[in-house]
Amino acid sequence: MCGVVGLIGENKAGEKLFPALFALQHRGQDAAGILSFDFQRGHFQLEKDLGLVSQVFPLERLARLQGSMALGHTRYSTIGTVEKEDLQPLVLSYPNGLGMVHNGNVTNYSEILDYVRKRRSRWTFTRNDLEILLHMMSIGVSDQLEEGANLNAEVLAKAARLVVEQVKGAYSIVGMMANLGMFAFCDPQGIRPLLIGRKLEEGRYKYCFSSEKQVFFGLGYEYWRDLRAGEFVFIDQEQNFFSFPLAEKIARPCMFEWIYFAGAETEWHHRPVYEVRLRLGEILAAEAARKMKLEVFDVDVVAPVPDTSRAAALRLAEVLEKPYREVLIKNRYVQRSFIVNEPEMRKAMVNLKLLPVESEIRGKKILLVDDSIVRGTTSARIIQLLREAGAEKVYLASTCPPIRYPCFYGIDFPEGESLVAFEKTEDQVARFLGVDALIYLPLSRLKEAIGLDSLCSACLDGDYPVKVSKNEFLDTRNRNIGGGGKNEVNV
Amino acid sequence: MCGVVGLIGENKAGEKLFPALFALQHRGQDAAGILSFDFQRGHFQLEKDLGLVSQVFPLERLARLQGSMALGHTRYSTIGTVEKEDLQPLVLSYPNGLGMVHNGNVTNYSEILDYVRKRRSRWTFTRNDLEILLHMMSIGVSDQLEEGANLNAEVLAKAARLVVEQVKGAYSIVGMMANLGMFAFCDPQGIRPLLIGRKLEEGRYKYCFSSEKQVFFGLGYEYWRDLRAGEFVFIDQEQNFFSFPLAEKIARPCMFEWIYFAGAETEWHHRPVYEVRLRLGEILAAEAARKMKLEVFDVDVVAPVPDTSRAAALRLAEVLEKPYREVLIKNRYVQRSFIVNEPEMRKAMVNLKLLPVESEIRGKKILLVDDSIVRGTTSARIIQLLREAGAEKVYLASTCPPIRYPCFYGIDFPEGESLVAFEKTEDQVARFLGVDALIYLPLSRLKEAIGLDSLCSACLDGDYPVKVSKNEFLDTRNRNIGGGGKNEVNV
Amino acid sequence: MCGVVGLIGENKAGEKLFPALFALQHRGQDAAGILSFDFQRGHFQLEKDLGLVSQVFPLERLARLQGSMALGHTRYSTIGTVEKEDLQPLVLSYPNGLGMVHNGNVTNYSEILDYVRKRRSRWTFTRNDLEILLHMMSIGVSDQLEEGANLNAEVLAKAARLVVEQVKGAYSIVGMMANLGMFAFCDPQGIRPLLIGRKLEEGRYKYCFSSEKQVFFGLGYEYWRDLRAGEFVFIDQEQNFFSFPLAEKIARPCMFEWIYFAGAETEWHHRPVYEVRLRLGEILAAEAARKMKLEVFDVDVVAPVPDTSRAAALRLAEVLEKPYREVLIKNRYVQRSFIVNEPEMRKAMVNLKLLPVESEIRGKKILLVDDSIVRGTTSARIIQLLREAGAEKVYLASTCPPIRYPCFYGIDFPEGESLVAFEKTEDQVARFLGVDALIYLPLSRLKEAIGLDSLCSACLDGDYPVKVSKNEFLDTRNRNIGGGGKNEVNV
Amino acid sequence: MCGVVGLIGENKAGEKLFPALFALQHRGQDAAGILSFDFQRGHFQLEKDLGLVSQVFPLERLARLQGSMALGHTRYSTIGTVEKEDLQPLVLSYPNGLGMVHNGNVTNYSEILDYVRKRRSRWTFTRNDLEILLHMMSIGVSDQLEEGANLNAEVLAKAARLVVEQVKGAYSIVGMMANLGMFAFCDPQGIRPLLIGRKLEEGRYKYCFSSEKQVFFGLGYEYWRDLRAGEFVFIDQEQNFFSFPLAEKIARPCMFEWIYFAGAETEWHHRPVYEVRLRLGEILAAEAARKMKLEVFDVDVVAPVPDTSRAAALRLAEVLEKPYREVLIKNRYVQRSFIVNEPEMRKAMVNLKLLPVESEIRGKKILLVDDSIVRGTTSARIIQLLREAGAEKVYLASTCPPIRYPCFYGIDFPEGESLVAFEKTEDQVARFLGVDALIYLPLSRLKEAIGLDSLCSACLDGDYPVKVSKNEFLDTRNRNIGGGGKNEVNV
Repeated sequence: MCGVVGLIGENKAGEKLFPALFALQHRGQDAAGILSFDFQRGHFQLEKDLGLVSQVFPLERLARLQGSMALGHTRYSTIGTVEKEDLQPLVLSYPNGLGMVHNGNVTNYSEILDYVRKRRSRWTFTRNDLEILLHMMSIGVSDQLEEGANLNAEVLAKAARLVVEQVKGAYSIVGMMANLGMFAFCDPQGIRPLLIGRKLEEGRYKYCFSSEKQVFFGLGYEYWRDLRAGEFVFIDQEQNFFSFPLAEKIARPCMFEWIYFAGAETEWHHRPVYEVRLRLGEILAAEAARKMKLEVFDVDVVAPVPDTSRAAALRLAEVLEKPYREVLIKNRYVQRSFIVNEPEMRKAMVNLKLLPVESEIRGKKILLVDDSIVRGTTSARIIQLLREAGAEKVYLASTCPPIRYPCFYGIDFPEGESLVAFEKTEDQVARFLGVDALIYLPLSRLKEAIGLDSLCSACLDGDYPVKVSKNEFLDTRNRNIGGGGKNEVNV
Repeated sequence: MCGVVGLIGENKAGEKLFPALFALQHRGQDAAGILSFDFQRGHFQLEKDLGLVSQVFPLERLARLQGSMALGHTRYSTIGTVEKEDLQPLVLSYPNGLGMVHNGNVTNYSEILDYVRKRRSRWTFTRNDLEILLHMMSIGVSDQLEEGANLNAEVLAKAARLVVEQVKGAYSIVGMMANLGMFAFCDPQGIRPLLIGRKLEEGRYKYCFSSEKQVFFGLGYEYWRDLRAGEFVFIDQEQNFFSFPLAEKIARPCMFEWIYFAGAETEWHHRPVYEVRLRLGEILAAEAARKMKLEVFDVDVVAPVPDTSRAAALRLAEVLEKPYREVLIKNRYVQRSFIVNEPEMRKAMVNLKLLPVESEIRGKKILLVDDSIVRGTTSARIIQLLREAGAEKVYLASTCPPIRYPCFYGIDFPEGESLVAFEKTEDQVARFLGVDALIYLPLSRLKEAIGLDSLCSACLDGDYPVKVSKNEFLDTRNRNIGGGGKNEVNV
Repeated sequence: MCGVVGLIGENKAGEKLFPALFALQHRGQDAAGILSFDFQRGHFQLEKDLGLVSQVFPLERLARLQGSMALGHTRYSTIGTVEKEDLQPLVLSYPNGLGMVHNGNVTNYSEILDYVRKRRSRWTFTRNDLEILLHMMSIGVSDQLEEGANLNAEVLAKAARLVVEQVKGAYSIVGMMANLGMFAFCDPQGIRPLLIGRKLEEGRYKYCFSSEKQVFFGLGYEYWRDLRAGEFVFIDQEQNFFSFPLAEKIARPCMFEWIYFAGAETEWHHRPVYEVRLRLGEILAAEAARKMKLEVFDVDVVAPVPDTSRAAALRLAEVLEKPYREVLIKNRYVQRSFIVNEPEMRKAMVNLKLLPVESEIRGKKILLVDDSIVRGTTSARIIQLLREAGAEKVYLASTCPPIRYPCFYGIDFPEGESLVAFEKTEDQVARFLGVDALIYLPLSRLKEAIGLDSLCSACLDGDYPVKVSKNEFLDTRNRNIGGGGKNEVNV
Repeated sequence: MCGVVGLIGENKAGEKLFPALFALQHRGQDAAGILSFDFQRGHFQLEKDLGLVSQVFPLERLARLQGSMALGHTRYSTIGTVEKEDLQPLVLSYPNGLGMVHNGNVTNYSEILDYVRKRRSRWTFTRNDLEILLHMMSIGVSDQLEEGANLNAEVLAKAARLVVEQVKGAYSIVGMMANLGMFAFCDPQGIRPLLIGRKLEEGRYKYCFSSEKQVFFGLGYEYWRDLRAGEFVFIDQEQNFFSFPLAEKIARPCMFEWIYFAGAETEWHHRPVYEVRLRLGEILAAEAARKMKLEVFDVDVVAPVPDTSRAAALRLAEVLEKPYREVLIKNRYVQRSFIVNEPEMRKAMVNLKLLPVESEIRGKKILLVDDSIVRGTTSARIIQLLREAGAEKVYLASTCPPIRYPCFYGIDFPEGESLVAFEKTEDQVARFLGVDALIYLPLSRLKEAIGLDSLCSACLDGDYPVKVSKNEFLDTRNRNIGGGGKNEVNV
């Protein structure tokens, strides 16, 4: 998962993306970058590094980001596989001045890489799939120019169409063509979100693209609309807006954005995240009543696993007419990267990640609400923790149906037995977690809660919107783990 | 505000305090330190530095903290006044091996400093009031030893009695006497919290002192009881427990611990913080009904200002039978120390600190609950933010009565006009904040909510448990702001 | 000034360049870099950074430099104009895999940049002239490939010929063509040095290119010969050696290499630097006798300004039959970058740069030998220092004739009045420096000392081997000082 | 070895010591520190850290060093044993305000430590012998004050006398007593140097103490005289000068200061270092003639091992009427701390430390002059290097007699077989080194060259001026290597 953002029409657009990246920091905390373009000087300026947004950009670095058009990125990656060369944005200087950011994952990476190598005879590559997207786009443009076309919106749209036809996977892209303007497009099924904001000043709109809506609020923009699946959007130097169709497929937005990833403040497909999460709780209440039967009347308190599941737990409590309480407090200072040697200390650190509010737990029958259950290890630990703190009963309700398949489109899910629900019935999972009752929202009702019938729910039912061959699967996994070719230069 | 912790009886007690400090990090994020004592080698080892707990202690630093007795500290301080020499713990090597940590503030600092200088002819001092507490304790011990006493628990208790008689202010202290054991005591009115935990292993108790209860949970200790106002506690090398009376005053615990400072998971004076906060909401509901009259039925939604006021808002909503919603999301990445030059960017950064959930705001009459209102600037901004996001009405309820006086006991409150309620009626404050109605919890009902009649509520009613003269007031202020003598060495 | 090095035929050639760069550190202390190529994997790996060689390359960085072919660089630059993007080596990935390092300066930079922009429509550029050399070479190759040529040594040589015909200035280049091999060439007059070393192992030679000879010694290579002016040299993957003529001009090597820049251990044009410096002293002795007349017999001691002028001073002393003494000791710890505020402290720092050996100065008539006099400020200070330490007379002899013109070929000389000899007679310079006599080696005798008639002595007599127009002059100056376009990205 | 310096009478004396420490950097490059005292505020300020002088003191750190009295220190230590707590200066705040720096080594450390522990019941200690010197001085002062004395120069002198009577070893100390003034003294035989400088301004002298003379030159002071063995010197706040006798022993200055340690620009006992080194060469010439017999006429060139032995080689060449040449160039960038894994790279790095000037070596008979031969490994390597570069014969002359015994007074010599001359005749050493002839200066003639009969030459003849017992020897060794108790705090 990553956060992307683009801005055109502002003075010092690059500098303005600094606050914007804070609003997308939760989508990626490993690295951040901004690329600006200055129409006056005809120059790109790129600043990116490992670290939090606040660490990557001291004032003097921001000051270099001149020009009225800029892209930004926050990056998520598994520990140990971060290479400086892989950070986004990436920019090509030759033969076209082309810069891009993206959120997603290319599934036929090796195939596309071979094609690019043949067409471009390049000797160095990053492991970043953005790089091959960038070259595909550039090849598409170059081919048309060689045939005599003039560089304009149509040429870009046609190049994007070639990308979309050949590159498989999920990708939401914002890009800049030197001296021309800013563009955005995504895979034909629009698996990852991309929103458009705008601000009217002196009779013309300035535009902003972003993975989430709160960026618009922070920058003083209004949220206009989503980028549509199969749409290519272009804004030129005079801030004229163009839209071209690339493909005609039905959108399959990733359901996990509403469940977990997206900030509570954003919306997508006209479905505000907070509202969806309330509805998830509402429907889950009915499921709980159905599954727990009489026991449901015995529940003393409904409690969320902080932070994402608060809205659902709250609404569930309302529907069941049970008190909502926060029985677990999240310690914001214990993070994933601490290394402690001794088992005793490790245990203490894990203990301190979520602290029980004993006064609300002892002697209570608790219905705990979590957004989803992936590996199940954290859930099992929480349930034991509540029991140790004196809970009489612990029921667990998940707003996400059982996750049983890997994601190839950018979410860091494991595969096979590492998924607690892999080849297990719900009862088996319940026993594994040590819970008195386990309520999963069924997939059909998840769609109801979101209000969309066409979703990407591959991790739930194995119905992959973009087919992935065995080889592509292995290839994707290897790239993520960090294979041999990882240290090359990108030039 | 600071967090203190002590541990005796464990192997590598110093190392074990590392996870403990994470549980107290919210009480101070500017610096952290651990001091260990090794009875075998007769040596202290001190490791402390500016930064978060996670930054201050790499593994090799923890490994040096040998021995079965240790103190820990997390430090809060205003930006710019942090000096490395001022960090805690402090240790005296000569004439007694004495180490201490504390939480609080000495109000007759200059007077005590003069006394110490006379008795000790020291040439260098930190600005830390712990240093003079340490010397006062050491002088008290040395005087008795010179008169022929043998160093033991009674001698320590007597020295502590002298400290308590002469040093004014609020202080909760944990200390270690080389080769002897660990002690704890506080000012006669017990203004700041100190709790005792223990763990029975092989027939004897190990002991742990901490500002908050969750430390015990993290380390596998049980919470035993509070340190009493006017009590001196000592645990010797064999882990025998002693208690001596120092003073006979009625406790005046700081009410702001329940309102804001303490973690929701702790308790003090048998009042669990989360429970108190629920009750604050409950009583505040009645106040709201009384003050808002019919308007109260019109409220669409009750919402907390995250994070502290969640419990109160929740209970208030329950009592009023109104839905509880989170309409503001806190951005964890925007912190106080960012420096941005341009007003436009500063505004964007402020905007991004609390993000509105528009779907829950537009067209709604919102009753917002905050733990307290100090300067009022944040409150005013939030109210404007809600209105801009489409709120029809915004009411504000505060679980803390109007703050009108400075705190001399360790809380970083401003004085005079910087306090929004200073010399203003509640209506004037309401107008200043731009709110449709403002409900403050009255002081009498605050006591009811906490369930204690004797509290330190000096910031509310000016009734200071420890009198502070004009000179002492100015002196305290100067030390906090950072006067001339700040860079001296402590040796 | 910079140092360049290339190595082909060794396992882990990149790692082996690490010690080699220490031997060239005196030619540039601002940055260092190594680029390796791995024929097996078909990949470049680039590691470069600001700082000393010892700082830039931790072990793990060296370990990444896989492959049997590598280039290295040490960089000299004026404070404040160092940009990370400008560091060498540079590598092009597309359309040819081409990496290069160089030492020198392009004088028609803007003209070439325009040409490259036209041919390559690039949107970002460093300010480094290597970048345009790299693109010119790449364009030369690409054009031939498009016409159907196969990539081989001839194609490279032809491309180099195009470079040499169009790019004006001084440049000694070592480069690598991916999958093909290593090449080297320089401007037609060979203004900057480039030497070839080799090592016979298992019946075939491994080759090494370097700015100076001691690199060969360090790596266990023998010094074979110089790269000739107008020669293009290529070594293929099997280590076969090819040489092609590019141009037929007479060499004009920079005389300042022997005077000052080169290490005493190297040689060039069969003239060992140490030997030349001895001869400079020998001839300077005759000049001193001629100019000082009877006074020369009165000299008590001949002394060098450390470190470069030791050899000359020594031989001069021998010829005059006067004792050679070191009356000034250089403090290695006071370097150019210290910033001190107070004039008094600045003075103390300057004082400590060169410390007088008073026992050898007091009451003595001293003939001081310096390699050259540029601005004259250091010389003036030294002379005053010797007088203050009690010298009776101070004579100054310079192994370099008066420097009166700027250098456009890579040496950081100032222009106009900043040069002490600018529009001044030797007597005027003597008076300015406050010296009892001033002896300059005449240009004719400098040639005699070096043993070459054809030299670049432009800074002495204004006879520029490569003509520089007024515009090019201004352009060069601006790029050196750090003009507007300095922060662009190189991609 | 270390460098010490003290300054009294200047405004901002601490800041002024910054340039002074550069002039003493060659005596210790591991750490640096300055302690200042401000009579107005009655405060010490201490700034010290690991690193070069240039790294330890940024401007803001210097600015804190207020007051007219200050001490400075540069520290030498073996890799891996540097602890921040061990850095100098050290300051005691209680019971007296006392700060000190020293150069040397205490040989009865454990005995003195026991005494201090008894008298001071301290619980923490550094491993630095300065700390116990500081406490001994402080105990001496405190004891007199307790008996009713007033703190003044006599009291300090009497305390210093007690130190000198009990503490064995070599130590040159500069100290400051808060509110009183600056003092200096050394062990009764004055084994390590301490010089006094002064500057007359407005009718009174300001004073400076330093290990070497060039500090005075840098600060604009005149060199007045040496501190005498057995002398206690005190300068009060009004800059009045006092001198008291402490002991009546004959001075035994360390001969190695002239041979190697001291800068060429300093002097001691009226013997300028450069002059002594010339004389060493002169006498060594006679020894060479005597030992080499007819061969001496065959020598083609006399060459120093850079840098220290230049003066001796030069004079030796003059006397033998042979040319002096520099055949080895020292690479200033290859330093002791580089870690390289592969033997091949290690060899290259060693090769590059000293580079041969082949033009001066090939076919020549070379008489190489080195200041001393300790382990012999470097000498053996150099000799082989010269042979490989074509030298016909290599003779080696050492200005220092054979080193056969360890030093207990602060020089980092090894013991036993690690010393090449240990239990070997000169011929055996010659064979070991692979040299055609080996000439050592005899001890008697070393004294002649220095012009002093009473020297510390313990490492040459085992005649230790301060006796060291077996236990003390082992103890010293352990402390140097880094024993168990090294991490304690100094408070």
